Amino acid sequence: MPEIDPFAGLGAVLGAAARIQVDPSRQTRKGVPEIVYAAGKSPQVTLAAVCQLLESGPTGRVLVSRASADVATYLEANLSGNDAQVRVVPGGSTLVVIRAGAGAPVESGGVVGLLTAGASDAPVADEAAWVAVEMGCRIVRADDVGVAGLHRLEAPLHSLREQQCDVIIVVAGMDGALPSVVAGLVDVPVIGLPTSIGYGLGGGGVAALLSMLQTCAPGLVVVNIDNGVGAGATAALIANRVAAARRS
Amino acid sequence: MPEIDPFAGLGAVLGAAARIQVDPSRQTRKGVPEIVYAAGKSPQVTLAAVCQLLESGPTGRVLVSRASADVATYLEANLSGNDAQVRVVPGGSTLVVIRAGAGAPVESGGVVGLLTAGASDAPVADEAAWVAVEMGCRIVRADDVGVAGLHRLEAPLHSLREQQCDVIIVVAGMDGALPSVVAGLVDVPVIGLPTSIGYGLGGGGVAALLSMLQTCAPGLVVVNIDNGVGAGATAALIANRVAAARRS
Amino acid sequence: MPEIDPFAGLGAVLGAAARIQVDPSRQTRKGVPEIVYAAGKSPQVTLAAVCQLLESGPTGRVLVSRASADVATYLEANLSGNDAQVRVVPGGSTLVVIRAGAGAPVESGGVVGLLTAGASDAPVADEAAWVAVEMGCRIVRADDVGVAGLHRLEAPLHSLREQQCDVIIVVAGMDGALPSVVAGLVDVPVIGLPTSIGYGLGGGGVAALLSMLQTCAPGLVVVNIDNGVGAGATAALIANRVAAARRS
Amino acid sequence: MPEIDPFAGLGAVLGAAARIQVDPSRQTRKGVPEIVYAAGKSPQVTLAAVCQLLESGPTGRVLVSRASADVATYLEANLSGNDAQVRVVPGGSTLVVIRAGAGAPVESGGVVGLLTAGASDAPVADEAAWVAVEMGCRIVRADDVGVAGLHRLEAPLHSLREQQCDVIIVVAGMDGALPSVVAGLVDVPVIGLPTSIGYGLGGGGVAALLSMLQTCAPGLVVVNIDNGVGAGATAALIANRVAAARRS
Amino acid sequence: MPEIDPFAGLGAVLGAAARIQVDPSRQTRKGVPEIVYAAGKSPQVTLAAVCQLLESGPTGRVLVSRASADVATYLEANLSGNDAQVRVVPGGSTLVVIRAGAGAPVESGGVVGLLTAGASDAPVADEAAWVAVEMGCRIVRADDVGVAGLHRLEAPLHSLREQQCDVIIVVAGMDGALPSVVAGLVDVPVIGLPTSIGYGLGGGGVAALLSMLQTCAPGLVVVNIDNGVGAGATAALIANRVAAARRS
Amino acid sequence: MPEIDPFAGLGAVLGAAARIQVDPSRQTRKGVPEIVYAAGKSPQVTLAAVCQLLESGPTGRVLVSRASADVATYLEANLSGNDAQVRVVPGGSTLVVIRAGAGAPVESGGVVGLLTAGASDAPVADEAAWVAVEMGCRIVRADDVGVAGLHRLEAPLHSLREQQCDVIIVVAGMDGALPSVVAGLVDVPVIGLPTSIGYGLGGGGVAALLSMLQTCAPGLVVVNIDNGVGAGATAALIANRVAAARRS
Amino acid sequence: MPEIDPFAGLGAVLGAAARIQVDPSRQTRKGVPEIVYAAGKSPQVTLAAVCQLLESGPTGRVLVSRASADVATYLEANLSGNDAQVRVVPGGSTLVVIRAGAGAPVESGGVVGLLTAGASDAPVADEAAWVAVEMGCRIVRADDVGVAGLHRLEAPLHSLREQQCDVIIVVAGMDGALPSVVAGLVDVPVIGLPTSIGYGLGGGGVAALLSMLQTCAPGLVVVNIDNGVGAGATAALIANRVAAARRS
Amino acid sequence: MPEIDPFAGLGAVLGAAARIQVDPSRQTRKGVPEIVYAAGKSPQVTLAAVCQLLESGPTGRVLVSRASADVATYLEANLSGNDAQVRVVPGGSTLVVIRAGAGAPVESGGVVGLLTAGASDAPVADEAAWVAVEMGCRIVRADDVGVAGLHRLEAPLHSLREQQCDVIIVVAGMDGALPSVVAGLVDVPVIGLPTSIGYGLGGGGVAALLSMLQTCAPGLVVVNIDNGVGAGATAALIANRVAAARRS
Repeated sequence: MPEIDPFAGLGAVLGAAARIQVDPSRQTRKGVPEIVYAAGKSPQVTLAAVCQLLESGPTGRVLVSRASADVATYLEANLSGNDAQVRVVPGGSTLVVIRAGAGAPVESGGVVGLLTAGASDAPVADEAAWVAVEMGCRIVRADDVGVAGLHRLEAPLHSLREQQCDVIIVVAGMDGALPSVVAGLVDVPVIGLPTSIGYGLGGGGVAALLSMLQTCAPGLVVVNIDNGVGAGATAALIANRVAAARRS
Repeated sequence: MPEIDPFAGLGAVLGAAARIQVDPSRQTRKGVPEIVYAAGKSPQVTLAAVCQLLESGPTGRVLVSRASADVATYLEANLSGNDAQVRVVPGGSTLVVIRAGAGAPVESGGVVGLLTAGASDAPVADEAAWVAVEMGCRIVRADDVGVAGLHRLEAPLHSLREQQCDVIIVVAGMDGALPSVVAGLVDVPVIGLPTSIGYGLGGGGVAALLSMLQTCAPGLVVVNIDNGVGAGATAALIANRVAAARRS
Repeated sequence: MPEIDPFAGLGAVLGAAARIQVDPSRQTRKGVPEIVYAAGKSPQVTLAAVCQLLESGPTGRVLVSRASADVATYLEANLSGNDAQVRVVPGGSTLVVIRAGAGAPVESGGVVGLLTAGASDAPVADEAAWVAVEMGCRIVRADDVGVAGLHRLEAPLHSLREQQCDVIIVVAGMDGALPSVVAGLVDVPVIGLPTSIGYGLGGGGVAALLSMLQTCAPGLVVVNIDNGVGAGATAALIANRVAAARRS
Repeated sequence: MPEIDPFAGLGAVLGAAARIQVDPSRQTRKGVPEIVYAAGKSPQVTLAAVCQLLESGPTGRVLVSRASADVATYLEANLSGNDAQVRVVPGGSTLVVIRAGAGAPVESGGVVGLLTAGASDAPVADEAAWVAVEMGCRIVRADDVGVAGLHRLEAPLHSLREQQCDVIIVVAGMDGALPSVVAGLVDVPVIGLPTSIGYGLGGGGVAALLSMLQTCAPGLVVVNIDNGVGAGATAALIANRVAAARRS
Repeated sequence: MPEIDPFAGLGAVLGAAARIQVDPSRQTRKGVPEIVYAAGKSPQVTLAAVCQLLESGPTGRVLVSRASADVATYLEANLSGNDAQVRVVPGGSTLVVIRAGAGAPVESGGVVGLLTAGASDAPVADEAAWVAVEMGCRIVRADDVGVAGLHRLEAPLHSLREQQCDVIIVVAGMDGALPSVVAGLVDVPVIGLPTSIGYGLGGGGVAALLSMLQTCAPGLVVVNIDNGVGAGATAALIANRVAAARRS
Repeated sequence: MPEIDPFAGLGAVLGAAARIQVDPSRQTRKGVPEIVYAAGKSPQVTLAAVCQLLESGPTGRVLVSRASADVATYLEANLSGNDAQVRVVPGGSTLVVIRAGAGAPVESGGVVGLLTAGASDAPVADEAAWVAVEMGCRIVRADDVGVAGLHRLEAPLHSLREQQCDVIIVVAGMDGALPSVVAGLVDVPVIGLPTSIGYGLGGGGVAALLSMLQTCAPGLVVVNIDNGVGAGATAALIANRVAAARRS
Repeated sequence: MPEIDPFAGLGAVLGAAARIQVDPSRQTRKGVPEIVYAAGKSPQVTLAAVCQLLESGPTGRVLVSRASADVATYLEANLSGNDAQVRVVPGGSTLVVIRAGAGAPVESGGVVGLLTAGASDAPVADEAAWVAVEMGCRIVRADDVGVAGLHRLEAPLHSLREQQCDVIIVVAGMDGALPSVVAGLVDVPVIGLPTSIGYGLGGGGVAALLSMLQTCAPGLVVVNIDNGVGAGATAALIANRVAAARRS
Repeated sequence: MPEIDPFAGLGAVLGAAARIQVDPSRQTRKGVPEIVYAAGKSPQVTLAAVCQLLESGPTGRVLVSRASADVATYLEANLSGNDAQVRVVPGGSTLVVIRAGAGAPVESGGVVGLLTAGASDAPVADEAAWVAVEMGCRIVRADDVGVAGLHRLEAPLHSLREQQCDVIIVVAGMDGALPSVVAGLVDVPVIGLPTSIGYGLGGGGVAALLSMLQTCAPGLVVVNIDNGVGAGATAALIANRVAAARRS
């Protein structure tokens, strides 16, 4: 580690790149792809991180989470073309960058269930789904089945059981009641994914998260508000481990 | 209002009584009995308030809420006998003091439904029930029907409908999910009554209250944590108004 | 539930519609119209939800709450004309969409009182009023009667009693004191509706909500900050049940 | 300041006394008597502080606030007798220690109004009253006049005006609504004194304090929850300054 | 109170005016001018309130607080000219509207001290000052004398004493330490006015307010964060009462 | 559901039992044993719940969580002997009640890793371990390997890998840093279990929980503070599903 | 790491000891003695930890923090005598256990200043002092010099400068203003140590900590509420490093 | 202090300048340069403060923190040229203004280590670094070495030891785990600098700060979220004092 002038060239991509130590071995070590967390990073720094990972990573696929519109535009302008392509998760802030010639994710055989309480929760669910798809999983999903009309829940739960999901992600904002209800009914682990939908006291997802933490139903674990990446990655780790055991 | 020495005789019941201005007209003005809130009052002050209300109130019945064991013992020692009797709501901290010769509450014809999510919520539900009974209502109740096992909910809801409840109090601690579920299924107003059951982040009833405040189901209103008195009184106001309209 | 590609066509109205499971039976089951909660939904998704409800619902009237200006514009552009018309609650974010040929709400005979503490609270009161009107109620309303000048309260309370309101919604931000004052004076249930008016510690409606939760006056229940829909729907449920009993 | 062994003799009164630097000039500099804040101090340390002040202060009167029963007992055992006497504010945790031969507080001519919302608020009001009395003020007081029965407020307010109070302390827990109501009606400064009466969300005085901070009524300032000493001292400073101006 | 259509004409100034019940007697009843709290009010509603007060109030002067730039512009466009003039408190969001021919505030003889901890606190201090000036007070002020350089405090305190301030407002954000320091040194009541200057945990004025609430110095009372109006009005009430006593 | 007197016989075990609706099918439906949550339940109610489950459940084993010493003593006094035996998890508040003749838990083949950051975290880890053991899992555990001395972590992680744990529970209070560190190093899902060890701001487990929720490491999910039951049950669900897949 | 029965023998000291991995190399690695954090540990577990450290550590001195009276008694009963002696920091919950024959701490030459705002803060200051003394430092200390009487501060600051303190710990509860004042006046680093003295909103040390975090004075860093160990250890690290540089 | 019209000329730079009392002696008194905190100050006020310091300060160098883009532009427009130059810390909101002819900072010989957990934390680290550089220190820095991939930490820690850093600043948002890990491994004081990177519950740096406050590792002190100035200044005070001792 040389003694550096901490400010020299910070604004340039080159300098920014010097600030980054990507972790290309994570894919191998953890079974989770490297994900560039773009919040708080300039477009230049984000681009530098993506480029390093495209070069050094084993799959040629890089996820970018919490990307602003500026970052998305900058990456598309600088990457799309011969060498790579950028695909934006619709409605969300997750991007996938794919090196030219990179293959699709290898199917793992893992099956992840995904339920949302309301249509407003869909973008966060999309983020979780995409991460799990990148990790090779198949998604079985139903939207808008929240507790304000519980009769909508029966058919999807039947489908999830039929398709032998190994884990279910339940996405909910507002009252956050759906994950507890589902966890009381199924025999697989449930990951509660609270969203920032909601207002007033307990708004922004706080009530949803707290209600999930206080669940009466054993078998429910949670991630932070809007953390689709974390829910998707953990669900895929579980499903892929079960799938690997099935194959063995 | 004479200019008083603020400390003279404060410790004596007489002095304490001087601090109290009971509101015997509340029964007439509001349709809710006067309730002595005992938290923060010494046994002597509580006794003085009860005595004033027994004398001046129209019904000869006085409720005491949030009474410590000391207060209960003191009231029983000083009141039970010829002139009045004290009855403690089991498991809770609510007392009813009845003047000798006082009649039973007049039946109003109002019907209040009452559901608890878990058996731990029963003492708070008891408090709500007693207040509603004092206001003349009939209670239809089912316990321990929380969302961790939703199949337990169907039969009670059927009963509540059959018995034509005009309002339902749903009592829940922990995740507080049951009131939202019930409010999504019934066509009468629902009062969410959170209890202080729960621990960790969102414990002490905070998550339950917040989840109810964030409900997706229209038709759910709430009271504060463990406020059985408030839930019972409002439910009875609603039920009694409907009953009065039926009679008219 | 088919196994779907979770991202295919998400951005299009068609795909978005697939995410929605409207609940057209709510009107019948609950007595409350279906309300599209637009926060967190794109204009396209919101439009799809509205269209489904216009087609499947029994009344041809759909409420949209928490609609941004973008959503309002988009709905007006795509709906106004032959088939439907969009009306915006002034100053607020609530829309009503009316199918061509749909009738006015059927008058229920229920009477809802509505008081605001300050003129800043009026938009939230408007939302509550509109929901109750959609449910067939008549509104008796007075504005700007908060506790900083209590003499302004006497005349409106007299009116509310004269017009035989079955329930009163009291709307207040800042100190949130008015609902407790009103609940101490009237013999009908009171719904406290805190607004996000206020600043500093306890601002954004938090102090108002907490003060209402801590009320000394029995007969006061609350909804979350700015939840005009919830207050209006519950008030109408109460008033309509009393009115139905009167008619029976 | 010598270089000391920080632990030598800490447990003994003598060592504890070395930790104390009483401020006997406060009476002269501020017009407020020195008050020993006993929370967190051992009985020995508290005694040492009291003794220093009895010796060095100009009045021979010392207040002790937040004294536990242990401290009160210890002071009484070690002080009461020839040289000094200890008097406990009833129901509270404030003590007054009076040196033998010390005179009564000199009457300042200041008049302080004091209202409580409920009888449970009386102990905190007592603390405020005693401090103001020690500073020479006359107290005009009425208890249990909270907003749950506003009709009880008219007579006391009339008395306060008649007796020409220069400032009014309004003591309230729970919803904390009374200070705002009073401040909307009177033409003197009002000090809101929240008490820790209350439970659930916003309990322990939090809602009361926040509601007072959010008041719509100009002319209301506040102190912290249960800070009777602060309210009493500031009220007396105001009243005494007005009284001094009257005499000049 | 007629039975009104709650939405008719809401957007028009006329309709908005119907929502307003100005309190022109406050000036007489309270000694504080009517202040229009503009947050949450549309420019039209604000204008209507101002107009009513200009017509009905005794002084021809109206304060408007928390006015957005839109409101200020709208008032200036609709009022400035023949009949009234609008003056904006520099750097803040307080406006004064003066009816043509209205006199200056009558000097009361009250003297209010005003100290700020940092130059960033000046806009909030300006708001407090302007209210006190409107109530007839003279201001003695020093800025930027916070605890990070305590040597700057000595001279201003000397001036405040020389000029016989009856009360001191101390304005501070960040650590909020200055009011406690000042209250330990002076013999007049001190009003702590926290500002929303600060960041991170305890930012936005929260730490400043809490520190003032926890003060060790008796004689310090507080108002909410950025509540210059409240601090100025209470300070003027105190100072004016002392001044009136001096004259009597 | 008969119309019941809500108070009749509440204090007796019989009445209390009427409040309980045990869920004996949970073992079959969920794969998690029924657990009686004893907080807020009287010893009598707890006993009644345990008895119902002993009779109706498939395994003759019942867990009791959050049992006070009173509950433990009462259960031991009323159950230990011929028909059942009670075993207390050392140092914690979890009990296991075993019907006479009941078999040991059936080994599932699942392997759960368990790490604690400090010895103070051991009781919560014990609770998690016991639940997982009841669900048939084998535990591989190491204690006191927190981040204040990271060199202690290497050997245990090696062991966990060698013994092929399918999921790791990481228990930590205070800073809650260990789960993030572990989740960065392993390729199985990690469940963060915060404990209430800690003091001051963020104490009682709040900082630990928040830090885990904010983890940078994908693959970490959490349960509430001190929720050993929830962590143990979910870990066992995961491990048992993998084990079942291995066997299939 | 063998596969262990997680419950076997947990209650016995032997089993408890198996849960502990003491870090005897910390003294060498960090220059800070090993400190046993006793909160949440049984007396038996605490004893086992102390014994391991007495045997394996380089100095024969072990600190125990947050020890309850039970732990202190247990350690004294089992250790005091031939082999070791236990000394309790007066008024606090810190113990020092010294192996027979162990030497006194080696004087480092570091000088640490220590100021408390009030006598109630002394026990936390004692804890900080003792840790620094164990690390070889000399303490220069003055108590009860808080901002309510700033004139008491001048002399101690002069002494601290004269005695060439390399760092100053400033201990304060309540308003927490003293550390900011001191940091504005001195040219050495200041460590703010908030104590849990205080009540109401911001009580328990929260306001003190937040105010220190918001300080306007550069050169002030903080530790958590009541964390005397952390403040003392860091101060000693700083002072000892300066002292070592002086010697070199 | 003359009696001033508080509003006259406030908007002008001249008037604004009258509000400012710069503290040019701080450089000498504290060893920390004067830093203008620009949040809440208009560009004009900020400029006035900078100008006063350029004229009166000993070094001709002025730092400006929390400067908006508007302030930066205004300063550059009014200062850059003959007399002074403005340099913006890249990516951050810190400016340095240098008087024409001013020298570079005098090298103190102090060495400050600087580590960031993620590249998003770099701007806050830059602010800390620049302050320390202005105080004469040399910076040894490594970025993006957080706990999600701990293997990246070893080499930088080795470098910091080799280069003999006297203190280490560890910058982290999200889980805030890195400072505790580093403080467990090194023998110099560590300053934890939390950043506002993070989202959901505990986001905006709250979890990071709380986790650092709860650290198990002695030797870690903290500053507020994003307070690079405070961390840098304190680190430089420590490092410079050690360096001075080495030279002596």
